[in-house]
Amino acid sequence: MDGVQNVPRAGIIELVFGEPDPALLPVTEIRRACATALDGGRTAALPYGANEGPPELRRLIAARIAATEDRKVPEGEIAITGGNSLAFDQVLTRFTTPGDTVLVELPTYILALGIVRDHHVDLEAVPVDDDGLDVVVLERILDALALAGRRARLLYTIPTFQNPTGTCLSAARRRRLVELAAAHDLLIVEDDVYRELVYDGVAPPSLWSIAPVATVLRLGSFAKTIAPGLRVGWLNGSATQVEHFAAAGFVDSGGCPSHFSASVVACYLEGGGYPARVERLRSEYRARRDALAAALTEHLPPGSSFVVPGGGFFIWVTLPEGLTASALLPVAERHGVSFVPAAQAMLNGDDGALRLAFSMYPPAQLAEGAKRLGAALGSFSAGR
Amino acid sequence: MDGVQNVPRAGIIELVFGEPDPALLPVTEIRRACATALDGGRTAALPYGANEGPPELRRLIAARIAATEDRKVPEGEIAITGGNSLAFDQVLTRFTTPGDTVLVELPTYILALGIVRDHHVDLEAVPVDDDGLDVVVLERILDALALAGRRARLLYTIPTFQNPTGTCLSAARRRRLVELAAAHDLLIVEDDVYRELVYDGVAPPSLWSIAPVATVLRLGSFAKTIAPGLRVGWLNGSATQVEHFAAAGFVDSGGCPSHFSASVVACYLEGGGYPARVERLRSEYRARRDALAAALTEHLPPGSSFVVPGGGFFIWVTLPEGLTASALLPVAERHGVSFVPAAQAMLNGDDGALRLAFSMYPPAQLAEGAKRLGAALGSFSAGR
Repeated sequence: MDGVQNVPRAGIIELVFGEPDPALLPVTEIRRACATALDGGRTAALPYGANEGPPELRRLIAARIAATEDRKVPEGEIAITGGNSLAFDQVLTRFTTPGDTVLVELPTYILALGIVRDHHVDLEAVPVDDDGLDVVVLERILDALALAGRRARLLYTIPTFQNPTGTCLSAARRRRLVELAAAHDLLIVEDDVYRELVYDGVAPPSLWSIAPVATVLRLGSFAKTIAPGLRVGWLNGSATQVEHFAAAGFVDSGGCPSHFSASVVACYLEGGGYPARVERLRSEYRARRDALAAALTEHLPPGSSFVVPGGGFFIWVTLPEGLTASALLPVAERHGVSFVPAAQAMLNGDDGALRLAFSMYPPAQLAEGAKRLGAALGSFSAGR
Repeated sequence: MDGVQNVPRAGIIELVFGEPDPALLPVTEIRRACATALDGGRTAALPYGANEGPPELRRLIAARIAATEDRKVPEGEIAITGGNSLAFDQVLTRFTTPGDTVLVELPTYILALGIVRDHHVDLEAVPVDDDGLDVVVLERILDALALAGRRARLLYTIPTFQNPTGTCLSAARRRRLVELAAAHDLLIVEDDVYRELVYDGVAPPSLWSIAPVATVLRLGSFAKTIAPGLRVGWLNGSATQVEHFAAAGFVDSGGCPSHFSASVVACYLEGGGYPARVERLRSEYRARRDALAAALTEHLPPGSSFVVPGGGFFIWVTLPEGLTASALLPVAERHGVSFVPAAQAMLNGDDGALRLAFSMYPPAQLAEGAKRLGAALGSFSAGR
């Protein structure tokens, strides 16, 4: 696996990477889709692509949204992106000005912080609890900023199966959040990358689907359900926002940033196997979540806690009072297991929790990982 | 050709698009490369890619540079990009701060201006003449900025077969430019996208190859020689600069932005057909350049002038005194030919020239386009 981003170290069960198991990637299907995209006289996959992305992919995404979210989306409210990370960078470029305040969740997706920090904006954090982002604190922050003559321009949030906590924003908070955003002219960037990976019932409605028009930019992606290396996602917003987004200088110059991959994804979706694939992934990752949760229940010491997430890739473990995850990490790695300490996803130094990803390993290895984590916690506590 | 960026209008010979002729795209070869990239157990093309891009592609690019530019490049001085436009956006994000001064050529690549304008920097222009960027004026601008307590942070230049003028920076000016840059701590971004498309002799050495280390970031691309829709290019700089570039937030999060396409390009290059393909393109585009130049000589009215470019995609026509290209454009389109008026590539309103691209049409159509342009100029001048 030369040339990939995340390579597990020998002897360590890496519960670090929030990435699809390479064994579950649709290699054969994508090979077939490439052949279709480049079949015979078809050359539309190779010239500069339309700024908003291949129209056939936009139509197929609209159809999937209609089927799974019961919402009819005009093509003009969809732009194809180069994945959620580039899309978020592009949103920051196009929708913020240096010195603006950008709000993130606490804890948030670690690597989103680097994207925000590339944009010369002020960063403020809104805490997350078991029901997701705390909208009461958010309102307080928005009011305080307004009093200080400042304005929060944008909120980056993962309301559904959050990274890193696995939590879902409650229905009441979803409604309140979009109300607050509309009232304060706060643009919500909804990272909705885990929506399809729901293991119990159905995923809650996206913020984008319940908000007044132009309040939410929703970022969807095929990174978790098809393959991350393709770098294909999409943005939903008002037609004006979509146009503004897709008129980024580098897109106006180079065309859709994922044009070839997006054409391949369109051919893959046209093949009709995507809904069944998503079902298979749900069942596979559900089994992994269950295996990790059961083993954690068995092996974690008293005083630890976690909530079983309804979807996504992560279990967030709160450690017994007084333990810090960053100090635990080297001990855990000596025991052959790794994780992301809370401090990396925090802006306030809190480090009493850790993130475990259950996407990369089959159930037996996840159980072994939990066992090693329990042993590491035992030896760590004993040594204090 | 649904979903591509540039679609010719019926009845108009569009000498507008600086894009490879779709008929010359290597559809079959890329289809084969996709099959190789996804062959059997190979799954490295589908997970998140290494931030700096697939190592095999970096090695293949190093080998091509060694063969064509006689320079040995360590892998650490190459990062794979999502094409020159995204790479330039990423350079601006990572190497400038809002309020910095960024220098561009006058005229410059039109769509580069949009990329710069996305970054809240001050834009200043340095004129280009028949020998390329005027280094005497550049020095004056650098000194004036220094006197005013400001500093030019970065210069965006296309020294080889420039877009839009087709000019090459002279050898003496190349040396002077990198001296000035080193002395003023000015970072040169060298857009080197046309290097391989040389029609007479050999292309001049890149600024990157003659400059002190860390003075030049060179952007190379496969957009013109393989296919633009793949969005694959590379950046050359010092190891530290390459690392800083590839540590962009969105790359750190999503991996190499063109990972899948880059893996496909690596397989294509491994096949060994690239040097012969470049030769074939040179011969094809040389014939097109010659056809357009000959027809312009025949059909342009007295007082017009142009220099035959030694490579690239463009001929820059200076109009007879007093004519403006933007006013000519609708007349030309009524005659069935189109072009880019100078004003779009200028920051100072100058509009006495126009850009003709000869890449998209075979010789006979280029000749017909020149004839129509001549007729349009005749009727335009008569109507004044």
